[in-house]
Amino acid sequence: MKGILNAEAFIAQFKQQASAPNIEQMLAVQAIIDDVKANGDQALAQYTEHFDGQTLDKVKVTPEQLKASWDALDTDLQDALKLTKARIEQYEQRILYQDNLDEELSYVYRPLARVGLYVPGGTALYPSSVLMTLVPALVAGVKEIVVTTPVFTDTSITFAALYLCGVTDHVYRIGGAQAIAALAYGTETIPAVDKICGPGNAFVAMAKRLVFGDVGIDSIAGPSEILLYVDETAPLDAIVYDVFAQAEHDANARTFVLSESADLLERLSVRIQELLPEQVRSEIIAASVANNHYQVVDTRESLLNAVNFIAAEHVSVQHADQDDIVLNINYAGAVFKGVYSMEAIGDYIAGPSHVLPTNRNARYSHGLNSNDFRTSHAIINLSPKTFKEVAVAAERIAAAEGLYCHERSIAIRREEP
Amino acid sequence: MKGILNAEAFIAQFKQQASAPNIEQMLAVQAIIDDVKANGDQALAQYTEHFDGQTLDKVKVTPEQLKASWDALDTDLQDALKLTKARIEQYEQRILYQDNLDEELSYVYRPLARVGLYVPGGTALYPSSVLMTLVPALVAGVKEIVVTTPVFTDTSITFAALYLCGVTDHVYRIGGAQAIAALAYGTETIPAVDKICGPGNAFVAMAKRLVFGDVGIDSIAGPSEILLYVDETAPLDAIVYDVFAQAEHDANARTFVLSESADLLERLSVRIQELLPEQVRSEIIAASVANNHYQVVDTRESLLNAVNFIAAEHVSVQHADQDDIVLNINYAGAVFKGVYSMEAIGDYIAGPSHVLPTNRNARYSHGLNSNDFRTSHAIINLSPKTFKEVAVAAERIAAAEGLYCHERSIAIRREEP
Repeated sequence: MKGILNAEAFIAQFKQQASAPNIEQMLAVQAIIDDVKANGDQALAQYTEHFDGQTLDKVKVTPEQLKASWDALDTDLQDALKLTKARIEQYEQRILYQDNLDEELSYVYRPLARVGLYVPGGTALYPSSVLMTLVPALVAGVKEIVVTTPVFTDTSITFAALYLCGVTDHVYRIGGAQAIAALAYGTETIPAVDKICGPGNAFVAMAKRLVFGDVGIDSIAGPSEILLYVDETAPLDAIVYDVFAQAEHDANARTFVLSESADLLERLSVRIQELLPEQVRSEIIAASVANNHYQVVDTRESLLNAVNFIAAEHVSVQHADQDDIVLNINYAGAVFKGVYSMEAIGDYIAGPSHVLPTNRNARYSHGLNSNDFRTSHAIINLSPKTFKEVAVAAERIAAAEGLYCHERSIAIRREEP
Repeated sequence: MKGILNAEAFIAQFKQQASAPNIEQMLAVQAIIDDVKANGDQALAQYTEHFDGQTLDKVKVTPEQLKASWDALDTDLQDALKLTKARIEQYEQRILYQDNLDEELSYVYRPLARVGLYVPGGTALYPSSVLMTLVPALVAGVKEIVVTTPVFTDTSITFAALYLCGVTDHVYRIGGAQAIAALAYGTETIPAVDKICGPGNAFVAMAKRLVFGDVGIDSIAGPSEILLYVDETAPLDAIVYDVFAQAEHDANARTFVLSESADLLERLSVRIQELLPEQVRSEIIAASVANNHYQVVDTRESLLNAVNFIAAEHVSVQHADQDDIVLNINYAGAVFKGVYSMEAIGDYIAGPSHVLPTNRNARYSHGLNSNDFRTSHAIINLSPKTFKEVAVAAERIAAAEGLYCHERSIAIRREEP
């Protein structure tokens, strides 16, 4: 807890938060990438044995293991995942861009040919994240999806979610920077992809940064965060659980509560301390709240400034004036409006992907969606008439730039009989 | 000239072209970035003096200098630039995404707040590139644009293009990695921006890669390239000038001519050698043709495979079956269809931006357009009814993931009286 700040003091805390690059880590990751690029499976095998204690011969997850993972879930959970999948599909289909056709200047969309999906392993396995990444890719029309994940059990809830999405091939038990290198450049076992999506640890994030340009990447994910803009109309205990839901991810998760009422924030602080001890993940929550929980009180205008400066991953507005406030939010990973659209409902089932920009990246980027799995290009098809109307102007600019063959390539067509 | 290859041999040439990172350069650029981040103007002054032999006190280009640069152009050239600007505006407005509104799940767009534009200096000054980058940003609604360019004359055609676009403030004479660092993190003189666009040399490209994540970037530009898919219906000399127009950029520029007719390619080679000596930039063209000109003959199907594999920056189809061929092109920076839509007309005046992905990046990315200067987010606003229909399913997944406060944050609202 940082005490209650005003908007200016709050912004100042984040003004100088440029990420300091870890040069040593960068060099270590680049060495892994170079090794996988040069030596393929042999390098992959070494790293997989070294980091994960596994041999590469069991790297491929079989279709049978994927199906067994799905069959192992109870029916209620299967139905819940199916409902999520259907809602994501419906939303993504609705926002998918359509070709913009015209006689002379068209703009058209095509699905990416092959996409790589990195799914984190470890103790936290999130089938929801698999759906929130894979379903947009499927809606976009991507035909080939290659999955890497450092999960070494026979069955897993991650595998179950893949099965639900119809992924039956190209699932590999590989993690870390070596997985990103394999997806970027291909090995004997892993096919090279066009774009790599999905979050991972610091090594995975660095590897994605270093292969960017040779392949596409989604974004570089930082710790998760929520900004809540609330007033007395929001039920206090529900807000406490919205804070806890973010804080339970890990100790670095950040929670910001903004209000025009200092009194509300004081009551919130008391209630946070009261409810904290009884939570299953109270230790993680306590660490996150102690170091990364901010409360801000100020005028509407100053708070909106802060909201747009922080450009938080999740912005939840539960306020009598929520319509007006939401209209004034320019930068956010996603906006959650009203008491029945808490972040957790968006995390699981509302529809839009929960893969969202963190760490102020929403100033310039957006949450993952089906359009990120397409590419697009203009088709320029001028009529002879239009060509003749614009040719001389184009030649003039070409000449001014000293690009005489550009000029000539236009003039030779204009001068035709 | 590489002789005439078949499609498979052509693809093989580009299969292993992963860019090898220059670690030494990476560390040098990171040191400049860290210095500018820590020491602001003082560091900027040192680098500007060291690399450009200029003092920082003259760094700001005045509104008077911008206007004088415009006034110095002859009226024909002014009119040509105005026509280009109008055509870019018209096209970009047409393809700008509109808010997708809905009671429960909306998707909305907002212009970026502040954009940085890097304009190369040196001997080649391209007002067309200024328009092709700036006009999309203006159409998107970006209010603040900060320009850096290592141009130290009093007037310049670059300044004239900026003036035409209404940029009268925030133009700074700074280049290199230090300019990118200043745009990313801000100094006393240069305001920090949200996204940096525009091409530059290898140091600029590396700096953009390293600041990515703290700010957005457009793309990392490689040498320019054209792929021409032609048959006998295309006028041979016009094709030669299309090749030369690309080759005259620099010796690294790449040109690929694909045809189903080996005879046509042989005649093209002869004509290239005949016309080469009389070109103004014949030395550059000769170097580019010698090392980076490829000719490919194969069947339609194999050539289309090659087109989609290479995903060239510019794909020009001048062929009796051009409609059918263009329909089968999935990956290209931009497609130029027909004899009256040669690349040069797109470089200057057709409408779509000529800032396009190079080096196979069109497999996953697209040319710069107005939508790249906007960000977007979902607004989730479930009705109480929808919330109640989906809440239990979301709680089940949360519980399966072991995120109990996520579960509780939903349940507490569902259980409300």
